[in-house]
Amino acid sequence: MVAIEDVGEFEAIRRMIAARPAVAGVVVAGGDDAAVLRPEPGMDLAVTTDTFVEGRHWRAEWIGARALGARLALANLSDLAAMAARPQWAVVSYGVRGDHELDEILAFDAGLAAVLADEGAGLVGGNFAAVDGPEWFGLTLFGACAPGLAWTRSLARAGDLIAVTGALGRAGAALALAQRFGAPAAGAWWAPLFEAWAAPESRVGIARALADTGAVHAALDVSDGFGADLHHMCDASVAGVEIDGAAWPIDPLLERAARDLGVPADTLRLGPSDDYELVLAIAPAARASCAAIARDAHVPLAWVGRFTDRAGERIWIEPDGARRVLPHSGWDHFAHG
Amino acid sequence: MVAIEDVGEFEAIRRMIAARPAVAGVVVAGGDDAAVLRPEPGMDLAVTTDTFVEGRHWRAEWIGARALGARLALANLSDLAAMAARPQWAVVSYGVRGDHELDEILAFDAGLAAVLADEGAGLVGGNFAAVDGPEWFGLTLFGACAPGLAWTRSLARAGDLIAVTGALGRAGAALALAQRFGAPAAGAWWAPLFEAWAAPESRVGIARALADTGAVHAALDVSDGFGADLHHMCDASVAGVEIDGAAWPIDPLLERAARDLGVPADTLRLGPSDDYELVLAIAPAARASCAAIARDAHVPLAWVGRFTDRAGERIWIEPDGARRVLPHSGWDHFAHG
Repeated sequence: MVAIEDVGEFEAIRRMIAARPAVAGVVVAGGDDAAVLRPEPGMDLAVTTDTFVEGRHWRAEWIGARALGARLALANLSDLAAMAARPQWAVVSYGVRGDHELDEILAFDAGLAAVLADEGAGLVGGNFAAVDGPEWFGLTLFGACAPGLAWTRSLARAGDLIAVTGALGRAGAALALAQRFGAPAAGAWWAPLFEAWAAPESRVGIARALADTGAVHAALDVSDGFGADLHHMCDASVAGVEIDGAAWPIDPLLERAARDLGVPADTLRLGPSDDYELVLAIAPAARASCAAIARDAHVPLAWVGRFTDRAGERIWIEPDGARRVLPHSGWDHFAHG
Repeated sequence: MVAIEDVGEFEAIRRMIAARPAVAGVVVAGGDDAAVLRPEPGMDLAVTTDTFVEGRHWRAEWIGARALGARLALANLSDLAAMAARPQWAVVSYGVRGDHELDEILAFDAGLAAVLADEGAGLVGGNFAAVDGPEWFGLTLFGACAPGLAWTRSLARAGDLIAVTGALGRAGAALALAQRFGAPAAGAWWAPLFEAWAAPESRVGIARALADTGAVHAALDVSDGFGADLHHMCDASVAGVEIDGAAWPIDPLLERAARDLGVPADTLRLGPSDDYELVLAIAPAARASCAAIARDAHVPLAWVGRFTDRAGERIWIEPDGARRVLPHSGWDHFAHG
């Protein structure tokens, strides 16, 4: 007898997907950021789902109901951004306790709906269940893709540059700090880290602008951590990577967090962190045009390495030129410890 | 301060929906069995979601993992049947404990996938979360509708006949018996009732065949109980109803269950029961043709009453002609008691 925690989340999912019958009309199947479906020729639809569980994904003392609803929307929007899809509709599934204040649930729902509305999307239905234990909030989000042009994680090519949006590792650092010290007081030095966790930016706009260049060959969003997610991309694309430590954006707040937490800075940069930022494989010739698009959109975009044709090789190059294996420990919700 | 259980599930949902911004491309919004979306002119997509919560919707000693997965698929298929939609794709969301046996989860997933495959639909993705408390299993299912022709619950007309599939009330009776006596032994007199709860029939095929007649004006599926669901249909259609007690199908097993449980038989017929059967508003001229379609499909179809233009009036006519108010207590997951 084997328990889920014995094999881990990813192996359990792999076995589940392997056993499922094939389905007609599927352009991109499970295992990417979103599935892509083709209801009619000439129309592609991306669909993703994510659920937050109380005590696992948040604690009530860290984040208010409205902000939590917004964050659930942003987590799902991030998956559609990673497919270059245009968000359209969503259905929710809430499991809440009967004594939960109604106004809190309405605030959650309103926070979620407001973020979707900012992207031209909205809630069209849902399901409401009563629970006795921890609460959970799920969202399933659909959007339109340019037919045949949805980004996947499997088409990165040797020579493609690796670009990342935002400041990676902040969400994971904030969570570790909050678990140790509670939510930060207003004005605390690490409030910006906490903000990165509590209210990630939507990358839908920049994704769609970059998609128009045709130069993005593959993409995913960082929901487990840069190291783990990049390994997923390498596996799917059968590619190697070299990451230039010298090109990695310096983040003094993250370095301070590492000192306060007593962990190496790389653990926070590359380890478990649901940043909801994009990792992009971009044709080298398009570097300048993509950089200009990001600048115009006020989105930080860092060029941190390249894909290689040495599929098994995932390398971090230290600023002094030393090469070491890129760590790949991300979130595994079922892992021990 | 008002808690959800103070106002009940339906009022909480009503307030949530009322506060949500309008969304483009929505043909049928929240509050029906499924939402209907229009990604492109000439193409309608129905979407529904449902989640089973351990201890609320099932107990492990009543139903195995594979059968439970099948039942979750059937619950969602029932919502699409009630829209006359053709099921196509589904995504799951599972919240399970880390020590859960992997084979059990794979069996659940396989049971769910097999039922979907029977209808030409399949799983395309999902989300997997770790929980410490009660487990839950959610499904979001979508399918195609003939553009503009999805059934709703709001277009029943005065004079329409009311037809119901299957044997209503059996699921609720089985649940009450199981709560009192545990799951039935093989060959127990009430095993057929339990089977109606554990493995409801898919009504997708009969729904699509009836839709082709153009004579079905409104539909919903019985997920709360006939009385409650019919009241929802009357409210949505601004119509009254008369139900002929004399036309109601005699169900000796349900009558025996009522005796054993010490409740009136009407409580089981009309009260809380997630039968996943259809309630249909059908043009009187089409009675014979619809009856023939049901007979050919081997689906029991009973003609139990008619809609009237007296919107406030919901009447049960006893076999002796006495008229009384149709009860409407269904499931409210947050109601006290």
